[in-house]
Amino acid sequence: MEFKQVMVVRRDLGMGTGKIAAQVAHAAVMAAERTKHRKPEWFETWFEGGQAKVVVKVQSLEELMQVRQRAEALSLPVVQVNDSGLTQIPAGTTTCIGIGPAPADLIDRVTSDLKLL
Amino acid sequence: MEFKQVMVVRRDLGMGTGKIAAQVAHAAVMAAERTKHRKPEWFETWFEGGQAKVVVKVQSLEELMQVRQRAEALSLPVVQVNDSGLTQIPAGTTTCIGIGPAPADLIDRVTSDLKLL
Repeated sequence: MEFKQVMVVRRDLGMGTGKIAAQVAHAAVMAAERTKHRKPEWFETWFEGGQAKVVVKVQSLEELMQVRQRAEALSLPVVQVNDSGLTQIPAGTTTCIGIGPAPADLIDRVTSDLKLL
Repeated sequence: MEFKQVMVVRRDLGMGTGKIAAQVAHAAVMAAERTKHRKPEWFETWFEGGQAKVVVKVQSLEELMQVRQRAEALSLPVVQVNDSGLTQIPAGTTTCIGIGPAPADLIDRVTSDLKLL
């Protein structure tokens, strides 16, 4: 079975490349840890098998929360990143979510309609 | 004690924002895992304390390898990301490294002269 982790980033915040990279890394580390605790076999298979990651985008907080709800409805491990707000955007702003790692066919039901960042 | 994780990215490869975010996320997850095994107390303190991350840039592979060597000389946990090459760049290209999490004053001895991405 194929596994992947997907990060979904808001593109309406005007974040620069370095800021986006840090937010996506936050989501990736936290989602990996959450999956490791909730679904250790998913984490291990993914980690040993190349750690596939996909980064996609949305245009609003509302759209991001819809993706989150769809992921949670499928019981996928999801984390939400709220920025500390030291640079570029107000503190507490929700910037992205991380989903999985999880079976690719399951995660595709949530994110396959989203465009690559 | 303050802890942080630093990712160092090559800017000479022409990678787009999404590609960079995925590479930085690879480095962050792998470096976090490595630190968790080698220095579990460093990982725990950092993970529970806000997971500070910094993303900086270099302009060549040579510069990246120099940073890596300086980090290893201080026995810091370091991982290197070699891209699978499915998009944008040739397979096996070294795109970035991840260092730590580690005590900020120690990691600053390696990366404080590098510019933010």
